[in-house]
Amino acid sequence: MTRRQDVTRALAEWIVGCKPSDVPEDVQKQGVRGFVNWMGCAVGGASHETADRALAGVTQFSGPKVATVLGRTERLDVLHAALLNGITSHVLDYDDTHLKTIIHPAGPVASAALAVAELKDLSGADVLHALTLGIEVECRIGNSVYPDHYDRGWHITGTTGVFGAAAAVGKLLNLDAQRMTWALSLAATQSSNLREMFGTMTKSFHPGRAAQNGATAAFLAEAGFDSAEAGIEGRRGFANILSSKQDYGEILDTLGKSWEAGLNSYKPFACGIVIHPTIDGCIQIRDEHGIAPEEVEAIELFAHPFVLELTGKTEPKTGLESKFSIFHSAACALARGDGSPTAFTDEAANDPVLVGLRRRVKVETSPSVREDEVTITVVTKDGKRIKKYVEHAIGSVDRPLSNEQLETKFMNQAKLVIGEKQAADLLAKSWKIGEFKKVADLAKASVPA
Amino acid sequence: MTRRQDVTRALAEWIVGCKPSDVPEDVQKQGVRGFVNWMGCAVGGASHETADRALAGVTQFSGPKVATVLGRTERLDVLHAALLNGITSHVLDYDDTHLKTIIHPAGPVASAALAVAELKDLSGADVLHALTLGIEVECRIGNSVYPDHYDRGWHITGTTGVFGAAAAVGKLLNLDAQRMTWALSLAATQSSNLREMFGTMTKSFHPGRAAQNGATAAFLAEAGFDSAEAGIEGRRGFANILSSKQDYGEILDTLGKSWEAGLNSYKPFACGIVIHPTIDGCIQIRDEHGIAPEEVEAIELFAHPFVLELTGKTEPKTGLESKFSIFHSAACALARGDGSPTAFTDEAANDPVLVGLRRRVKVETSPSVREDEVTITVVTKDGKRIKKYVEHAIGSVDRPLSNEQLETKFMNQAKLVIGEKQAADLLAKSWKIGEFKKVADLAKASVPA
Repeated sequence: MTRRQDVTRALAEWIVGCKPSDVPEDVQKQGVRGFVNWMGCAVGGASHETADRALAGVTQFSGPKVATVLGRTERLDVLHAALLNGITSHVLDYDDTHLKTIIHPAGPVASAALAVAELKDLSGADVLHALTLGIEVECRIGNSVYPDHYDRGWHITGTTGVFGAAAAVGKLLNLDAQRMTWALSLAATQSSNLREMFGTMTKSFHPGRAAQNGATAAFLAEAGFDSAEAGIEGRRGFANILSSKQDYGEILDTLGKSWEAGLNSYKPFACGIVIHPTIDGCIQIRDEHGIAPEEVEAIELFAHPFVLELTGKTEPKTGLESKFSIFHSAACALARGDGSPTAFTDEAANDPVLVGLRRRVKVETSPSVREDEVTITVVTKDGKRIKKYVEHAIGSVDRPLSNEQLETKFMNQAKLVIGEKQAADLLAKSWKIGEFKKVADLAKASVPA
Repeated sequence: MTRRQDVTRALAEWIVGCKPSDVPEDVQKQGVRGFVNWMGCAVGGASHETADRALAGVTQFSGPKVATVLGRTERLDVLHAALLNGITSHVLDYDDTHLKTIIHPAGPVASAALAVAELKDLSGADVLHALTLGIEVECRIGNSVYPDHYDRGWHITGTTGVFGAAAAVGKLLNLDAQRMTWALSLAATQSSNLREMFGTMTKSFHPGRAAQNGATAAFLAEAGFDSAEAGIEGRRGFANILSSKQDYGEILDTLGKSWEAGLNSYKPFACGIVIHPTIDGCIQIRDEHGIAPEEVEAIELFAHPFVLELTGKTEPKTGLESKFSIFHSAACALARGDGSPTAFTDEAANDPVLVGLRRRVKVETSPSVREDEVTITVVTKDGKRIKKYVEHAIGSVDRPLSNEQLETKFMNQAKLVIGEKQAADLLAKSWKIGEFKKVADLAKASVPA
């Protein structure tokens, strides 16, 4: 077993040595799925006000504009493009999830890697390999400190994302083991982001800034800017200071043999993960029984207590608030069959039909119910009781989104920003990322015509 | 008393409302002294390899080059200039100190404020006021979490410096109270930097990055990028997550009545503060008795145990290592009368005269001795015992450096980088910062002719 004072160095050496052929085929395929999902989210979030304001704040400082802001016409320097794409891919709360740690892995890593690849004229295969390695590093570091680290209040997507971005960019820059060690330690000393920011634009700033800071770490290390040898495990390093749990076996054991990057999952619905079983079940009832809202006497839910604790808003006024309302979400899923971003708009939150229906949603909870299961009973005005038990919500590891479902998700977001035709073209190209000699051509395909 | 859930908001309102005429005259004067000291350190560190490598890493991403890298010919965008000047002003470990918290206050704040003032064509008076406010914010937030926060392993100059930079730049941008609140919360979520990095280039990266991140926070807030209301005191905010001590009275009580910014102190010697009493006393013995190294049988020190714990290197091989050797420092002070950067070069560390003398330094320690006192006994070969008791080292709050001593310190560093004549001109101009209509003219006076 590797000595525990060598965690940062051993991880760096593994990143430096890992070849594309070392990555199992199923993990490589998951990398492509993750890239497609991330691209859809980044384009889907590109027209959000959060992106407008971030651009208004930082464009004045942009260096050479060699990198694409996905889904927009602006271009920025590499570091600022990483920031913006990290923001947009997270702003709809619709991105990917490493369920063991609640890290949203692709945002920090892909946003940094794609921008650097545009600068350096790299291929899609280069980006895919860097993306897989970066996600692996990020999730393993997350495993080593989860759950204590997250429970303390750290936004783990930002705190671990900076390592993933540094690893991915360091790989694209072909850093040697010494410089990769410095890059990881430069990432460690920039690891931050507080959960206090949830509910504001600053939440999506986190994966963006992690992308930007991780890339900066790698470029500084490339230039010989030195750093600690043990930024992760040192006495005053990341794990000891930001967590009371430090399980370095999670980082080093089975490295290259089992893959966290193969466990990435994709949200089918644009809201917190605890609502997903309910939306899933209500859409199934709608599809199977075709009940109109006015026929419904009540929607009864039997769920885990977390559901009410996290998403108990009874009268949401805005689209953003409606993401935290199990009542709205159940009503919208039953009435419209929708859990995509269009289900969480100001319009939907104030639609009289949905407002009426959500007031007829009743929630009972018990700790005996798992977080990812629910029992739904729709009671109709003529006395029928339609029951649906959801054992694992769609999008979980046990019921992963199919490629077709990922495509639907992609199109539902992207067509709203760049139109149906261009979205379909971008989707087809994103699946083929591995064939692009210059991945910059793929990035450009996202720019509104 | 202000409700404790309003810490961030109350602090923001105070920053927004504070006028230059609200700052007592002695605090204003300390601001000028702090600026002069910071300028000398930034120019003194400008030719360091750390700056070369940072520039090699980030220049490729610089936006419009409107801001000066002090003491160098390169120019950078505002954010990157803030990074570089923060690095150079700290790289010689020679900057200012808020002794209650060991924060080095000016680096993060002045580096951000000066660069922004160059962009916006602001005056020296504007920069001085922003600098004083930024230092006040930074040190008060430091007081609220010190010592637990530092003891955990956070590099407090970085973790609190980002707030100081955000406050100073927010003031220069005339943010309203809402936007200033967002700027402080955007700073909170970027608060980081680990003591694990000490002894590497990344230590001086910390004040630089704090300057850059704090400025970014203010520019984003100006653009309406929103953030938490309670980034400092929120349940998952800065103080609760990065410390187990949260004394918000240190932030809000007596705000505008007593001034931490008036307590800034300046290192007379280019090394850790625990060696200062010894260097001070040895130089006094040399001045008073003129003893040659070959006449010395032994140098006996009676000091606090921290001195050996932190600076116990007996055989330093490099200039950097010699900063952590009480033996070298005492020998060099007695033989050369020097504690400035020239005392801590590779040459000095390997000078046979100093190596011989440092081996004749004997250290006894006792917890009964205060950290800032020492008793020195020089025993000569002909049997004399010369004793010197230093109650408070020069540079401490009780024995502050005079303006003349600050000038000597400034010249000793700056002349090595930009030559004696230009250094003297820059020094004279720095004292007159308050008279500059365009402070950019002062910054330019630091550029090597």
